[in-house]
Amino acid sequence: RERLRVFVDVPAFQRTIIAVITLNGVALGLETSPGLADGHAVAFVVIDRIIVAIFAVEILLRITAQGKAFFRDPWNWFDLIIVGVALVPASESLSILRLFRFLRILRLISVVPSMRRVISALFSAIPGLASILVLLLLSLYVAAVIGERLFHEAAPQHFGNLGKSLFTMFTVLTVENWPSVAEDVMAKEPLAWIFFVTFIVVTAFFILNLLIGVIVSAMQT
Amino acid sequence: RERLRVFVDVPAFQRTIIAVITLNGVALGLETSPGLADGHAVAFVVIDRIIVAIFAVEILLRITAQGKAFFRDPWNWFDLIIVGVALVPASESLSILRLFRFLRILRLISVVPSMRRVISALFSAIPGLASILVLLLLSLYVAAVIGERLFHEAAPQHFGNLGKSLFTMFTVLTVENWPSVAEDVMAKEPLAWIFFVTFIVVTAFFILNLLIGVIVSAMQT
Amino acid sequence: RERLRVFVDVPAFQRTIIAVITLNGVALGLETSPGLADGHAVAFVVIDRIIVAIFAVEILLRITAQGKAFFRDPWNWFDLIIVGVALVPASESLSILRLFRFLRILRLISVVPSMRRVISALFSAIPGLASILVLLLLSLYVAAVIGERLFHEAAPQHFGNLGKSLFTMFTVLTVENWPSVAEDVMAKEPLAWIFFVTFIVVTAFFILNLLIGVIVSAMQT
Amino acid sequence: RERLRVFVDVPAFQRTIIAVITLNGVALGLETSPGLADGHAVAFVVIDRIIVAIFAVEILLRITAQGKAFFRDPWNWFDLIIVGVALVPASESLSILRLFRFLRILRLISVVPSMRRVISALFSAIPGLASILVLLLLSLYVAAVIGERLFHEAAPQHFGNLGKSLFTMFTVLTVENWPSVAEDVMAKEPLAWIFFVTFIVVTAFFILNLLIGVIVSAMQT
Ligand code: NA
Ligand code: NA
Repeated sequence: RERLRVFVDVPAFQRTIIAVITLNGVALGLETSPGLADGHAVAFVVIDRIIVAIFAVEILLRITAQGKAFFRDPWNWFDLIIVGVALVPASESLSILRLFRFLRILRLISVVPSMRRVISALFSAIPGLASILVLLLLSLYVAAVIGERLFHEAAPQHFGNLGKSLFTMFTVLTVENWPSVAEDVMAKEPLAWIFFVTFIVVTAFFILNLLIGVIVSAMQT
Repeated sequence: RERLRVFVDVPAFQRTIIAVITLNGVALGLETSPGLADGHAVAFVVIDRIIVAIFAVEILLRITAQGKAFFRDPWNWFDLIIVGVALVPASESLSILRLFRFLRILRLISVVPSMRRVISALFSAIPGLASILVLLLLSLYVAAVIGERLFHEAAPQHFGNLGKSLFTMFTVLTVENWPSVAEDVMAKEPLAWIFFVTFIVVTAFFILNLLIGVIVSAMQT
Repeated sequence: RERLRVFVDVPAFQRTIIAVITLNGVALGLETSPGLADGHAVAFVVIDRIIVAIFAVEILLRITAQGKAFFRDPWNWFDLIIVGVALVPASESLSILRLFRFLRILRLISVVPSMRRVISALFSAIPGLASILVLLLLSLYVAAVIGERLFHEAAPQHFGNLGKSLFTMFTVLTVENWPSVAEDVMAKEPLAWIFFVTFIVVTAFFILNLLIGVIVSAMQT
Repeated sequence: RERLRVFVDVPAFQRTIIAVITLNGVALGLETSPGLADGHAVAFVVIDRIIVAIFAVEILLRITAQGKAFFRDPWNWFDLIIVGVALVPASESLSILRLFRFLRILRLISVVPSMRRVISALFSAIPGLASILVLLLLSLYVAAVIGERLFHEAAPQHFGNLGKSLFTMFTVLTVENWPSVAEDVMAKEPLAWIFFVTFIVVTAFFILNLLIGVIVSAMQT
């Protein structure tokens, strides 16, 4: 077991796994080509099975080597779920599980230690942002409810129901295409510009503060 | 009265109010669904009345507990107005008052102390921004007046009057759809690009400085 | 003369001038309304003449009070030109001079000391940005020349001559509408995406560095 | 040789080269005008040949003056390649080489020392960004593969093959026109908004962290 632990930490072992993940990514890309996918359907399935087998062996080796410690690291759970799902015989109906095949490329993050650190740093920045993010979500929700109530008749294509209204306000949050949405509404509700301008100014102000909060807290560390 | 003061600061009391506000938010969301709203119109009115009653009792308790101190905190005035408006029998014509129903969701901010602090921090950042904001508004106004004077014949859909012109320049400020506006004008006034490019460069420069001003003042605190 | 110097620095004098500038801004705004402008054309001309007369008197007083020192401050030159142009009897053909009427609103900046300081701070930030700005302009020019050479046949509406090409690349710099421009070109030159993606990534990188340069230099002051 | 070394460092020598590069840039711009280019085709070729000859002599002088040291500076390699390509008799088929003519304008960067320093500073910032850039590219690739798999039938114009899908996801990364892409897909796959909103939120978060990383590392220097 001690020898196994040394083995799974050997750079050559890690580099092999990185190569397999990259190969996996390339294969998934090539599979999108109808010409290749139709002619070599069996080959792609075989490659996929081999890659999953290598991943399964890799994880079994790491579990054996690290024992209970393996399950303490959330990154290992990520690997376990990604690979575990691939071993489940997915029926056609569970097509959401097929998406996990593509997420296997993200194992590049869990396998390379420097990438793990970057992601950990990202997540550690979230608590400081939490209250501004809650404010943004709250503004989005209140604006969507008000938008639906005020404009669902004036512009049903944008504000016809709460779902559409939430989607529309999210697009306005990215300032994408908002003048055209506003003009659709203003054709029937001339004062609607107040709603859109207020929303853009307020959310821009929140995002400005989110930016500053992150920079300031990053400087203090 | 001392016991009341302790009572309104008990976490359970606050948590109950947060739950009621959340319930209020969910109810307002569900009300946007025509299926639900038509079939359970009475239920929604009853829920709304109950929630307003709870809020009214909560505020009465807090006024009794805190006495004059209650009226010194602007957040309490926010609560008071939001809930007070709900108690006024709003005639159909005063539809603007109906908007206050949706703003009740924003009580989540006034009730949770950490959210209050975030908003206070936002407002305390404004004085430092004031002069740049005035510059931005001044630029917007001057550009709108010049735009109306120069282009109200070339592109009446964008610059037909000062109101339209202000709206158009605000959309250009968000750089949204500006090439299409500029091309509409340039079809008749080929030199109009000077106006738009100058406006975008100048306001981008102002916004850049606004950003820096906020970051620098945030770092000094 | 000493008494004049005291007089022009009296807050009431400054406040009067600020009020006149604001009135000037409001009058220019009202003038955009065809209803008002047609019915009260004479009134608007009279108001305009009175305001210019007040400004002329104000500047004469300040020149008398400050003597040669007046001409050492660039802000005073700004005031002098803005008001001087208004006194020149502009023929119809010199319509560019008419634009100076609207710039009189910007006297709000030259009259309020705190606004002067903000603008001075903005200009003092420019030298540190100069090299990145030159890089951005150079990239814009090189990209416009290359774009015209490669795509003037594929998309004459965007790249038909160097002027159009410069305008198009400036719009791409603001990432506004670029996918539609790129698709127009890619319909005939499928590899054109390389050009657009490279341009966006390179200029985004320059703007990122411009931002950082300004923040770092602001922090060091 | 010592006298040559002094000569190539004389400000007048450098200023002459800067003037020639600027002349080159202006000539390339004028060449885009069909009227000028057709009437003076020979003149433009002669000017181009003279400019290349001057550059060639300049570089020969600098190689003679600096000896082996010349080849140690990557900026000199940049100059050498840009000018070397111009001396190769380019056949029509090698039209990519013709692009190097326009890149000669970028010699302004390699000749002016302060511009060299700015670019060096930009490149020295890249290592700190590398892991976030890899994350962004990885997200782009995974999103493009998933997008192609899920939506190539629903919206073949955006996700018809991996190339289109990569281009589409890059445009979504710039938030340009994304609501229209999303709506095209949502017409057939109503849940597609989850895909787009997740992608925008995740990449915005990565770009936010990229920004902060650069600012923090810039402050520490
Ligand atoms: Na945009
Ligand atoms: Na757009």
